[in-house]
Amino acid sequence: MSIFETGLDKNDANFAALTPLSFLKRAALVHPEKTAMIHGRIARGWAEEYARCRRLASALSRRGIGKGDTVACMLPNIPAMMEAHFGVPMTGAVMNALNTRLDAATIAFILDHGEAQVVITDTEFAPVMREALSLTERKDLLVVDVDDPEGPGGARLGSIEYEGLLAEGDPDFDWAPPADEWDAITLNYTSGTTGNPKGVVYHHRGAYLLALDNIVVWSLPGQVRYLWTLPMFHCNGWCFPWTIAAITGTHVCLRNVSAAHIYAAIADHGVTHFCGAPVVLGMLINATDDERRPLERTVEVMTAAAPPPPAVLQRMEEQGFHITHVYGLTEVYGPAVVCAWHEDWSALDPEARAAKKARQGVGYTTLEDLAVLDPETMTPVPKDGETLGEVMFRGNIVMRGYLKNPTATQEAFAGGWFHSGDLGVWHADSYVELKDRSKDIIISGGENISTIEVENALYQHPDIVEAAVVARPDEKWGETPCAFVLTRDGSDLTEAAVIDFCRANMARFKAPKTVIFGPLPKTSTGKVQKFKLRDQAQAL
Amino acid sequence: MSIFETGLDKNDANFAALTPLSFLKRAALVHPEKTAMIHGRIARGWAEEYARCRRLASALSRRGIGKGDTVACMLPNIPAMMEAHFGVPMTGAVMNALNTRLDAATIAFILDHGEAQVVITDTEFAPVMREALSLTERKDLLVVDVDDPEGPGGARLGSIEYEGLLAEGDPDFDWAPPADEWDAITLNYTSGTTGNPKGVVYHHRGAYLLALDNIVVWSLPGQVRYLWTLPMFHCNGWCFPWTIAAITGTHVCLRNVSAAHIYAAIADHGVTHFCGAPVVLGMLINATDDERRPLERTVEVMTAAAPPPPAVLQRMEEQGFHITHVYGLTEVYGPAVVCAWHEDWSALDPEARAAKKARQGVGYTTLEDLAVLDPETMTPVPKDGETLGEVMFRGNIVMRGYLKNPTATQEAFAGGWFHSGDLGVWHADSYVELKDRSKDIIISGGENISTIEVENALYQHPDIVEAAVVARPDEKWGETPCAFVLTRDGSDLTEAAVIDFCRANMARFKAPKTVIFGPLPKTSTGKVQKFKLRDQAQAL
Repeated sequence: MSIFETGLDKNDANFAALTPLSFLKRAALVHPEKTAMIHGRIARGWAEEYARCRRLASALSRRGIGKGDTVACMLPNIPAMMEAHFGVPMTGAVMNALNTRLDAATIAFILDHGEAQVVITDTEFAPVMREALSLTERKDLLVVDVDDPEGPGGARLGSIEYEGLLAEGDPDFDWAPPADEWDAITLNYTSGTTGNPKGVVYHHRGAYLLALDNIVVWSLPGQVRYLWTLPMFHCNGWCFPWTIAAITGTHVCLRNVSAAHIYAAIADHGVTHFCGAPVVLGMLINATDDERRPLERTVEVMTAAAPPPPAVLQRMEEQGFHITHVYGLTEVYGPAVVCAWHEDWSALDPEARAAKKARQGVGYTTLEDLAVLDPETMTPVPKDGETLGEVMFRGNIVMRGYLKNPTATQEAFAGGWFHSGDLGVWHADSYVELKDRSKDIIISGGENISTIEVENALYQHPDIVEAAVVARPDEKWGETPCAFVLTRDGSDLTEAAVIDFCRANMARFKAPKTVIFGPLPKTSTGKVQKFKLRDQAQAL
Repeated sequence: MSIFETGLDKNDANFAALTPLSFLKRAALVHPEKTAMIHGRIARGWAEEYARCRRLASALSRRGIGKGDTVACMLPNIPAMMEAHFGVPMTGAVMNALNTRLDAATIAFILDHGEAQVVITDTEFAPVMREALSLTERKDLLVVDVDDPEGPGGARLGSIEYEGLLAEGDPDFDWAPPADEWDAITLNYTSGTTGNPKGVVYHHRGAYLLALDNIVVWSLPGQVRYLWTLPMFHCNGWCFPWTIAAITGTHVCLRNVSAAHIYAAIADHGVTHFCGAPVVLGMLINATDDERRPLERTVEVMTAAAPPPPAVLQRMEEQGFHITHVYGLTEVYGPAVVCAWHEDWSALDPEARAAKKARQGVGYTTLEDLAVLDPETMTPVPKDGETLGEVMFRGNIVMRGYLKNPTATQEAFAGGWFHSGDLGVWHADSYVELKDRSKDIIISGGENISTIEVENALYQHPDIVEAAVVARPDEKWGETPCAFVLTRDGSDLTEAAVIDFCRANMARFKAPKTVIFGPLPKTSTGKVQKFKLRDQAQAL
């Protein structure tokens, strides 16, 4: 035994489980009066929000909720949703945020699979939740309605309203931190385009680290006023419910995400930062003059989900939004990759700059490793910007695994890396760029065609508002690219014109052979549902 | 077993030991060319610094250094010192930074007690190190000289020069992260005013967390250019060697800390941030016009060590430095407490603002708990701003313990808290304010007198540059305050005038009864050596 391994053990003074719950306790102590939460006419300080979270934890505990239990939440971006991120784990239970756009059958599946004991549900979703409750096998569910004063009203399904539940609880509740930082904190189901959704389990350690890393990666100041455009049910809002407590900033809630509401919140509440999928960026770019409000300062925007086309990035920056591009998946707590900026890129022309920024980038500070590997051999692909491989992750901000699904968990972690299923290249400067989902890549005449590359070309066209490309079966080529595009109102763009435009801007063989006009089907998280388009292309 | 405890285990994909070494690896990958290190005419990028650290680790490994070993460093704030913070722990060994102002006997004690295998020593310190090497019982020590091109030259004591050692090493050395994040990373001896110094052991987990927390607490941007005024041997430079890697900023080294050198570095290298004891602040305030250079922007300064008198804080801010006040001890990795700022304090008049800022404040984000407790009962003192108690810490940024000293370790951790030995009060807003070291408090006629309070009053006097107060034995009162002051050149301040000034500005019984004029003796870390003053006061 070395001298450094004797008499230097862990004890209560020098070791504590890492948990993001500690951030809330500290925020209430340090900045009790500072505004933690703005929601319509509601404004509450950190001490009050901490008291509300402790009430929630206390009330749930008194009703028997504790370690090993699951509390499901069907809520928009409102205070109750933020509070559930703290109040539920304070009991030792696991918080399961439900995607509010899901259908009743899927919700019922999730309640059953996650073995929920409690559902906290906003009255706006009463119709679908009523049906889900009739389908679930969880018969002793405690159903708590949230009848938000800023909401549309609607039926109450449960035995108690949320404020009534809080009233049962003790605002000084003596919650215990997790016994082990590896304990589960939340459960998030993937949107799963095929088969049943999988339940991704997060732990306190990972949530703590990513919450801090959001501050590091984004240089978040203590004066941050963070607007909730990104759904909190999406990877726990990329851990920002915890991040904003860690930096004692201010949450600005938003029930309904629209260009007008976003511009109004920025103007009325001094919003400095928000996160959003490219669909939100598109909203802002295409806002009408009536919807717009002048920006008094540059607003910082973190975007991910689908790689934003360079043209979209460029237009956002022209309008006063500064974009940070991140990338991740539910399995890595939301963003775990960032396009870390190099000072000298700022001197590039706007198009080259946007092209740099459209790359996914490098691992977060707390991610141990990011790599593009050949999934067969598990060896790195050359850093040539061309060779396709699978993007893989390793580190403390990777999920524990899939709930009750050891097979999928083992597959996902084969060879000691998390397999993202995303295909990408590694550039010479070690920045990763996504080229496609494994299942999306088009193979035409033996050549790989990245649907993302074709989409980026389409977005260069001034008349094209949204674009998605999928494979269409072809007797001669095997597959050819089929483009679905939504054009600006009044545009008279033709299929031939679109194809010509692409041919002029990229390798000819990569240009779409077919173009379909119309709105694109989207998932609840704003991603284009390519499987629907693929079915459509197949049926042509 | 709950569903959350089955099939969701740790594996290589989702768990890694926390270590600040990972920050350097990432910095080299993300910003290989960005300047990591400026030292005189030397400027190196992150990739080059990573390669140098790997060379150091490789060369030490080849010479048999590894887990359980100790590498001592007697170095000023130069690149080799930063590199040792990474290169040594990359071998698994523990880095022991020596205070370069210590005497030979104390250095020999530390080499023996820490069981050093290697000493890396700057030629500037050859005389004292030669003597220390003649005194130590470590006979097979590998001595590595650093003959810094920016240094004064001097004798070489060892068998190899630092650059020669690096040349032996492999720049692609495949270092292993620690097997356990609880493994020791560094060893720092307290300055110990009585008895032998104690060896404080830090671990990878704590160094990682505090390194990140410096970024959070100080809102450090990626463009930080950090000037090394604070000695890196002091609590590992408050973990900033690791912090600057985590944010991929730029280190600006400084062999000799003087007002002229600091102003020159700010002007020549675009320094944005530095840390320094109040003695450094005093230097800047009292700089001559020749030494000054205009500040092009506000420079952020983090200060601690002794509580800065409000008058000093105020003068610094008037001169363009923005002060963040932190507090800590060697046992808590440097700073673990910050005077987190409230927006509305900025509207206070300068004196009231400085008084707020002179308070030590609240725990860092990663500190689990900070409290002012009655050390007898271990219960919190009332938050009344008056009741004295002992400041205590709990959490992951508290040391593992004292090396080979289980008795001192157990005493320090009695009751599950780290006992700081500092006396303070808890204000109504939960901010801690130090009143004294336990051993410094003056008890006069049964009343406690805080020497810090008397010192703050003295600093209000325009002619007083430095002040320290200790107890002087007194037959009638038990003890009375005895002030030691250094006055501005040309001042004709008298003892009676000083006493009158204090009586006019505080409770009469707290005013000094004795005033001694002259320079103050300081420790190597810039703290006034009160034990010397106490001896002097006793001998009067």
